[in-house]
Amino acid sequence: NVSVQKSVVGVTEYVGISEGDTIGLVVANVEPMLHEKLGIDKKFRSVGIFSGRTGAGPQIMAADEAVKATNTEIVSIELPRDTKGGAGHGSLIIFGAEDVSDARRAIEVALKDLRRTFGDVYANDAGHLEFQYTARASYACNKAFNAPVGRAFGLIVGAPAGIGFVMSDAALKAAEVDLIDYLSPTKGLSLTNEVVITFTGDSGAVRQALIAARTIGKKLLGAMGAEPKSATTPYI
Amino acid sequence: NVSVQKSVVGVTEYVGISEGDTIGLVVANVEPMLHEKLGIDKKFRSVGIFSGRTGAGPQIMAADEAVKATNTEIVSIELPRDTKGGAGHGSLIIFGAEDVSDARRAIEVALKDLRRTFGDVYANDAGHLEFQYTARASYACNKAFNAPVGRAFGLIVGAPAGIGFVMSDAALKAAEVDLIDYLSPTKGLSLTNEVVITFTGDSGAVRQALIAARTIGKKLLGAMGAEPKSATTPYI
Amino acid sequence: NVSVQKSVVGVTEYVGISEGDTIGLVVANVEPMLHEKLGIDKKFRSVGIFSGRTGAGPQIMAADEAVKATNTEIVSIELPRDTKGGAGHGSLIIFGAEDVSDARRAIEVALKDLRRTFGDVYANDAGHLEFQYTARASYACNKAFNAPVGRAFGLIVGAPAGIGFVMSDAALKAAEVDLIDYLSPTKGLSLTNEVVITFTGDSGAVRQALIAARTIGKKLLGAMGAEPKSATTPYI
Repeated sequence: NVSVQKSVVGVTEYVGISEGDTIGLVVANVEPMLHEKLGIDKKFRSVGIFSGRTGAGPQIMAADEAVKATNTEIVSIELPRDTKGGAGHGSLIIFGAEDVSDARRAIEVALKDLRRTFGDVYANDAGHLEFQYTARASYACNKAFNAPVGRAFGLIVGAPAGIGFVMSDAALKAAEVDLIDYLSPTKGLSLTNEVVITFTGDSGAVRQALIAARTIGKKLLGAMGAEPKSATTPYI
Repeated sequence: NVSVQKSVVGVTEYVGISEGDTIGLVVANVEPMLHEKLGIDKKFRSVGIFSGRTGAGPQIMAADEAVKATNTEIVSIELPRDTKGGAGHGSLIIFGAEDVSDARRAIEVALKDLRRTFGDVYANDAGHLEFQYTARASYACNKAFNAPVGRAFGLIVGAPAGIGFVMSDAALKAAEVDLIDYLSPTKGLSLTNEVVITFTGDSGAVRQALIAARTIGKKLLGAMGAEPKSATTPYI
Repeated sequence: NVSVQKSVVGVTEYVGISEGDTIGLVVANVEPMLHEKLGIDKKFRSVGIFSGRTGAGPQIMAADEAVKATNTEIVSIELPRDTKGGAGHGSLIIFGAEDVSDARRAIEVALKDLRRTFGDVYANDAGHLEFQYTARASYACNKAFNAPVGRAFGLIVGAPAGIGFVMSDAALKAAEVDLIDYLSPTKGLSLTNEVVITFTGDSGAVRQALIAARTIGKKLLGAMGAEPKSATTPYI
């Protein structure tokens, strides 16, 4: 995806587009009736909007970097059932800011980082795998996944869900990590066909667990269809 | 879509098909065990069924015209997560009638009106936009959206959800309307990747808000893919 | 789908693949933290995993045969919203076993039986129909559908939902069966665009109801698109 220039689009609110049919937008002064329905802190007159058809993990990890780098807060994360006919989520992440320039900066950082966070997403016609890692979780990971702020954090997603289960088991056996949560289609996910685990621990152990899961996951999903390929460039 | 003749289908219950993979059906005397599970008023021995894969707004607006024009009631509106792999809803709308001819007439009216109500649905590979307007809301709009019966009513839908948010903000700033509700993927929607607003007001203001949203929405969705085109012919 | 040999996949947990993008897996000793999150009986140190993108009914019926034939229990059945962009469910079924050889055998039986249970699944671009029959329901049908164990059981699914409604009405009028449940998009289903009924009765009556529904369903879905074809070979 090549980002379309704002001048071409001709809409003040437009910031850019990125992987996963994701659009980044800002509203400088949210209309009062709408602001009230959002139920967010009054001080955030500006919002940044990070909205994708395909992917929740990549967008949440990119939002995590954005919130670290800017004077913004994550005010809501909602996960529709989407992926454009695939087995997973889309995402709608709203940043609150007192100043529109902060909201815009957060969206710019997130859009750019999304190329990286799609690096360990692997898909074929039968399903998808996703691996995310951060050495230091921040507020987006905390809000979405209860990740302890400041600690290493890992996320494993597999679809169809059974592959997620086996990857999760392999990851937890491969390294000494602390399981935060186990999510399945009707328990914590938006009816997606996924099993997800989230975990924390020493950064080396978190990476080791992720790599073990990735090895087995690529073999299993590959048995169901074409070789699963990275959406961009692996980073773990 | 060309409607298939009932004589060709050879099923008494068949009325016709229309836009959005929508089928219209009637049952003259609902089987008693099924009738009881539906939990509808006993006087409605006949039902009309309006069932679509793609679209909820267009079908609800068409059902609104049908209920105005016939001696029927809307007994249920359910919104599956569908759109055939897209970001939105499908719909299942059931009309109750004391006489099968009334149920059939309601479905005929709704099937025909659906070509009109798909007029301000715009889609491309990245998402969709929808705008609906009525000068006088009736019982389907009331049941589905809490629209005040007899008043002008507007509906704005955008997918991915972030586009719906920015269109909503623009609409509410463009005209003096009263916001009824703000719906997002996990709040009032069936996990669709949409933001929806509903509003009422003077008919001129409602139209003005819709036109403002449509202008900005088409630019934003167009930045993500091909130019969004009307499914049939715009009516607003 | 041709099952890929385990030796080629190179993962101990892999059992095989089958219809509906379904993968069968086993874990001999579930990792303790994961086992605890699953909340299953401690005696089941082994699990069998039966995970499909397309279909819930076929997988549940195949699991029902597997649980009859092996020393296993069904510990959970979850139904994601899936079918790869279609109108229905996917499935995640977990078998518990004290011994991994039992878990593996259950998955083998289920994978093989899935070719049969996809026999009365009919689809085209507009939707799908499904009919299932067993002369003697077991624990998977009981867990998923409240089917009385040991009795004949029938299941009818139609998408778009309106077709399911009319088929259900026809089935209940065609034979003396007892309706167990009526499920619709937001009532008992995972927001799928389906109407489902489940019923029990004499085995002849259950079959008669299914055949009546199939006759009308194929005509209605055929009016919306191409002639609906069986996914494998009809068995009812």
